[in-house]
Amino acid sequence: MSWQEKLRNVEPYQAGEQPKIKNLIKLNTNENPYHPGEKVISAISDFDAAILSLYPNPDADDLKHSLAQYHGLKDEQVFLGNGSDEVLALIFLTCFNGQAPVLFPDISYSFYPVYCELYDLNYEMIPLNEHFEIIKEDYYKENSGIIFPNPNAPTGLLVSLDFIEDILKHNQNSIVVVDEAYIDFGGESAVTLLEKYPHLLITQTFSKFRSLAGIRLGVALGNQEIIAKLYDVKNSFNSYPIDSLAQVIGKASIDDSFYIKDNARKIIETREYTKRELKNLGFEMPDSYANFIFIKHPQKDAEEIFKKLRENGILVRYFKKPRIDQYLRVTIGTQEQMEIFIENIKKIID
Amino acid sequence: MSWQEKLRNVEPYQAGEQPKIKNLIKLNTNENPYHPGEKVISAISDFDAAILSLYPNPDADDLKHSLAQYHGLKDEQVFLGNGSDEVLALIFLTCFNGQAPVLFPDISYSFYPVYCELYDLNYEMIPLNEHFEIIKEDYYKENSGIIFPNPNAPTGLLVSLDFIEDILKHNQNSIVVVDEAYIDFGGESAVTLLEKYPHLLITQTFSKFRSLAGIRLGVALGNQEIIAKLYDVKNSFNSYPIDSLAQVIGKASIDDSFYIKDNARKIIETREYTKRELKNLGFEMPDSYANFIFIKHPQKDAEEIFKKLRENGILVRYFKKPRIDQYLRVTIGTQEQMEIFIENIKKIID
Repeated sequence: MSWQEKLRNVEPYQAGEQPKIKNLIKLNTNENPYHPGEKVISAISDFDAAILSLYPNPDADDLKHSLAQYHGLKDEQVFLGNGSDEVLALIFLTCFNGQAPVLFPDISYSFYPVYCELYDLNYEMIPLNEHFEIIKEDYYKENSGIIFPNPNAPTGLLVSLDFIEDILKHNQNSIVVVDEAYIDFGGESAVTLLEKYPHLLITQTFSKFRSLAGIRLGVALGNQEIIAKLYDVKNSFNSYPIDSLAQVIGKASIDDSFYIKDNARKIIETREYTKRELKNLGFEMPDSYANFIFIKHPQKDAEEIFKKLRENGILVRYFKKPRIDQYLRVTIGTQEQMEIFIENIKKIID
Repeated sequence: MSWQEKLRNVEPYQAGEQPKIKNLIKLNTNENPYHPGEKVISAISDFDAAILSLYPNPDADDLKHSLAQYHGLKDEQVFLGNGSDEVLALIFLTCFNGQAPVLFPDISYSFYPVYCELYDLNYEMIPLNEHFEIIKEDYYKENSGIIFPNPNAPTGLLVSLDFIEDILKHNQNSIVVVDEAYIDFGGESAVTLLEKYPHLLITQTFSKFRSLAGIRLGVALGNQEIIAKLYDVKNSFNSYPIDSLAQVIGKASIDDSFYIKDNARKIIETREYTKRELKNLGFEMPDSYANFIFIKHPQKDAEEIFKKLRENGILVRYFKKPRIDQYLRVTIGTQEQMEIFIENIKKIID
């Protein structure tokens, strides 16, 4: 066996591009169009660089405490990681250890099957129905774990807490992960269900709602027993995943929550404006509750629209995949950006 | 199988404590006693917080390029991660896939067996000899990979490049990882061997030499083929492991290299002073080439010295483990800190 044969072969996740083009209207990776708040800006300018010679607090205790308070949870119910992708990866490694498959929707966050391949976990991708809806009864069978985003990505469709409770009740022997990356753009968080269901685990992120994609902060909320096991695995991987600056920035962001909620309100308004305009132009779309929409035009090829938008300096996300290759995922930017987007779309479909 | 049974059980690595005590002389986690340089301080104060709403560059390309230039390598030979613990974890997951054991010394970085347990890899801890030396011939047998720190931790002992070449020549079918976390305190890096040995992989860190433990930047240097596979695994785990601030701080640190090398020179001088003073007091120690020393007193119990130092506000590292439970690992602080340390040690052994 050569050294080359000892190397692991995996098919990595493809993130949306981060091009270095100036003046691009970037609607391809669901970033928040509003910048972080004043308290975050002050946290950076007041930061004492001298402490960077020391290791950070290993579990980001102060940030964890702030976030626990924000959600009305105990500190021991909060896990923090270097972005929600890391948190999800550690959840797959920690929580889904069985022979039965891990279950998730076929059209969903495309990182889920990548984690399964990385950690050699069995999985089954369960088709959404023709309206891109999750059919909960499909998840009432033996499994090693269940995960789905709420709202789902890239569709934006939201399920109710009753729906989540039904899945929890029919899966008492598995951990059910609700990935709430986009919950703060109009959805209702399942945090209130944590007390009743010890096998519920929720993930969230500072990247979207909190305008901090650049700082890498992801969150898991759950019962103490699961959270403690996540910390054990984290401490078998990286003792200090969250740097000292990210810890104070994250805490400042929680103090900025009033400003942040107002930004989410603006994004929701702009989303509804964008939906109306696009529907007037003949576009079809699931009813998104996220900071993006998933759109299709009955007469115009999606890839062609994608390419023409790009030529005009507007970047959206196109997935060349079965079932969704006639759709575009469009992040909701500022009102001004979306008006430019609509103007461009009008010209393209004319 | 209950949901509890689906949780992974691991015995995590125990990092040195990061107590919140004021005025502590902290000599327990091998941090650099000098703060980061002026360019790092400016990088933070000049940072435009608005860009934090965007995802970072996924592979930290600018920082990677700077570091490649610094080492005289191609960009494709450099891998960056969120601290060298993450880099090491990804190396174990990527490079050591075989049935034979991964080989490393019994007295070494105690995270290595933890990674093996996490990823279900076979491993064999090969005893150092009675002088704490690595015996290279012990590594001339079938294995799935080899890793050792140079200088070794917690002993501080250095091996020569000839020694490393012998191990490489006898292991053409495995990847040999040299963990150079402490190489810049007097050792010679194996970077010059990369051209000749495609199966050599080197890890380094910004935590020690560059006074940036708080920012989490780890490095792997190797041939393009191995580095590309590491990126594939990284992209199956976390697309954006290094936040935007860490990327500019790391780059500024490379521009600060003159100042940083001068700090390393001071640490080496202080280390040699500390060795002399301790030897005069009857202490024994391997000849360290790192920013720490590993000391033992023939008449005084190590744990007792550890406790008394702690009472006096000086924190060192004590490992309650076979073979080394009469040793203390002492990080080299500033000259002033080490003079206080020596004063305290004198009182304790009197």
